[in-house]
Amino acid sequence: MATVNPPRGMRDFLPAEKARRERVLAVIRERYRAHGFDEIETPVVEEHGRLHAGIGGDNEKLSYSILRRGLDADGIRAAADDPAALSDLGLRYDLTVPLARFYATNRGQLPTVFRAIQIGPVWRAERPQKGRYRQFVQCDIDIMGDESSRAEAELIVASLDTIDALGLQGGTVRVNDRRALDWMLDSFGFTEDERPGVLITIDKLDKIGPDGVAGELRERGVTATAVDAFEAFLKRPQTREYTPYGERQIRKALPESAPDEIVAHLASLGEAVVAARPDAGAPPLVYDPFLVRGMGYYTGTIFELAHPSVSYSLGGGGRYDGMIGRFLGQQVPAVGFSIGFERIVDLVAEQEVDQAQAVVLVHDADVPVAQLLAHKSALLSAGVARVRLERRAKNMKALLERSAADGYTGFASVRSGDEPGSAEIKPLA
Amino acid sequence: MATVNPPRGMRDFLPAEKARRERVLAVIRERYRAHGFDEIETPVVEEHGRLHAGIGGDNEKLSYSILRRGLDADGIRAAADDPAALSDLGLRYDLTVPLARFYATNRGQLPTVFRAIQIGPVWRAERPQKGRYRQFVQCDIDIMGDESSRAEAELIVASLDTIDALGLQGGTVRVNDRRALDWMLDSFGFTEDERPGVLITIDKLDKIGPDGVAGELRERGVTATAVDAFEAFLKRPQTREYTPYGERQIRKALPESAPDEIVAHLASLGEAVVAARPDAGAPPLVYDPFLVRGMGYYTGTIFELAHPSVSYSLGGGGRYDGMIGRFLGQQVPAVGFSIGFERIVDLVAEQEVDQAQAVVLVHDADVPVAQLLAHKSALLSAGVARVRLERRAKNMKALLERSAADGYTGFASVRSGDEPGSAEIKPLA
Repeated sequence: MATVNPPRGMRDFLPAEKARRERVLAVIRERYRAHGFDEIETPVVEEHGRLHAGIGGDNEKLSYSILRRGLDADGIRAAADDPAALSDLGLRYDLTVPLARFYATNRGQLPTVFRAIQIGPVWRAERPQKGRYRQFVQCDIDIMGDESSRAEAELIVASLDTIDALGLQGGTVRVNDRRALDWMLDSFGFTEDERPGVLITIDKLDKIGPDGVAGELRERGVTATAVDAFEAFLKRPQTREYTPYGERQIRKALPESAPDEIVAHLASLGEAVVAARPDAGAPPLVYDPFLVRGMGYYTGTIFELAHPSVSYSLGGGGRYDGMIGRFLGQQVPAVGFSIGFERIVDLVAEQEVDQAQAVVLVHDADVPVAQLLAHKSALLSAGVARVRLERRAKNMKALLERSAADGYTGFASVRSGDEPGSAEIKPLA
Repeated sequence: MATVNPPRGMRDFLPAEKARRERVLAVIRERYRAHGFDEIETPVVEEHGRLHAGIGGDNEKLSYSILRRGLDADGIRAAADDPAALSDLGLRYDLTVPLARFYATNRGQLPTVFRAIQIGPVWRAERPQKGRYRQFVQCDIDIMGDESSRAEAELIVASLDTIDALGLQGGTVRVNDRRALDWMLDSFGFTEDERPGVLITIDKLDKIGPDGVAGELRERGVTATAVDAFEAFLKRPQTREYTPYGERQIRKALPESAPDEIVAHLASLGEAVVAARPDAGAPPLVYDPFLVRGMGYYTGTIFELAHPSVSYSLGGGGRYDGMIGRFLGQQVPAVGFSIGFERIVDLVAEQEVDQAQAVVLVHDADVPVAQLLAHKSALLSAGVARVRLERRAKNMKALLERSAADGYTGFASVRSGDEPGSAEIKPLA
């Protein structure tokens, strides 16, 4: 028998895993809705040109294109010199490009400040490896139309509340601001042209350390005096944990005379989070002056969600005030937060106990169909949440064990002629 | 400003519509789970060859193919003579082909009788028209591994229960059996070769009537005596409503001496549905000896879900015992029922009242962010289900009306310095 598998890098979800994913999604939906966000949906397909407009960064190269329909042999031959002609549509690789397009399309029907939830699959032709898939679910919240730090504060509070509700208490948010980064690099003497390359190197600080960063910057051939000044700053004899989060700590983390406006903005996020979580003590924020985040479209605050149980981030986001304008021809402030759904699903407790009663109805082979369905209906009418019919098996132990593994809590036995509703329910396990 | 739209034939869902779709999905999920079905998920992408193996019928021609990655100019040129080389994957056009592949892949981990729920989008490059979209949600239940009519009865009862739970009481199921059709065509004298074409014509009976059917059969050039006999049968002076559903009515609807086994099988479905719905009276089934359903893979019972409020069907399905074997190399009985999610969403009452309290918190522009978030948290802690912040607008009437339309039930007003939790909630509308 030939092996039959889903396409490379993609997954089937069997009942237990699918149920777990739906439970996690239900909590995320409920919490984000509680915080005033509204769910929307866009097609998984967008126009090819829109997916390749430079907004998606490296993800554009990983995107799947859809073959244009109706191409004949001449059309295909001509496309050898112009491969873009082969495709008019593509699968989305993130939810941000579709959101910007959605906002431009539907703006007239949306409130001035629009808080969106988006939950859905995206596709990237990554090299398959453990924990990385070619189809995976993203889960974003975004606020459009609010240029104030109220928007960032709402995103952070809603996301912390959501992972709390999933049983992942103790999350922290690393915070920075692209404007603080820009100012800092200016102050060391890097030129504006050098900035994108320097940021790529700084993004590796956690991996390669201060010496690695300084070395790589020298290899890049950027302004030497700036590298020297930056290296000295990186190696200051003080911790990189600027806690508790607050204005004083943010000032200490930056070179002297950082702009008041940026410092006050960052500090206000801590105050807001504390006000929103009055019982939780110090704000679960950490200022990280070297947090970069890869995407080119960020213009202000950036953040990343960490959790003590794992070394990787559980989500992140930032402000991207310029992007909507590229579709709409009019600037609209925007800020977003994406939680890492696939990573969170793996962390959430294996099998929460489903309190509802679920009954396996074991029957002899000779019970007439009508009798069986009457028994099933009687149980459902009596308030049982789920009923599954199972023909009596030789190995009843295995059958009952599998039923328990599938979340069933009890079983009942039916023989031909039994009165519906008379079956005694015995606990499983 | 350029117009920005989703791809042709595809839709954005704004908050109110998305919320309605999710509410309908939640009911469908809950009811099907209650009846012992388990949800699974497969990738939206399957291998190109699998999507074009002849199982999908006309839908194969409407399918979207994904461009093979890494094609160079030579590869593209060569594909002019072999277009299949351009694509290795495609978007699914139904949930049945992926289910058969899923079952073949995962059979070792599934129960002997496996009851599956699948809910997800499919894609077809239809000509866009009112009510027909290129991406739409399908919603299928299937039972694999049960050759008895218990499976059909469970599908019918679960589906009727589900549309009842959606407020669409009064649904009926038209029932037939491909074996009855085959026997009937044999008995009139059509040859086996003629059968597929004859079925295509019979499928138009509702549209073109008995004269139209007879005329089209004559044009087809099939056995003339068979057409005469069939025409006479079609024009018998008796109603085509064989009610109440039962063995006597099924016999009356068929030519004489129909096989006992098929008649008994069809009659047993009525008994089972009555037993499962003891308070509902006569079974909501109608025997339709001319129900065909288009797909070539059906081998036994076929059914279609009707509702008095609409002229089109709300779903349908049938037994397809041969299909799984094409993937698995081993026959597995299977029967499925697909409810028309997009049609049902349109029928479900516009806006069910959400009983949960949802509050719009209207604030002055000068209230500090931290105070705002403290007010929001206080409301959530006090048991309010949803809180949305809104800056006080010049036109408060419009703001409150829009909030009510978005499902918010109350509003509260906050000024700088107000104590969190002190805001009085007034009803909206």
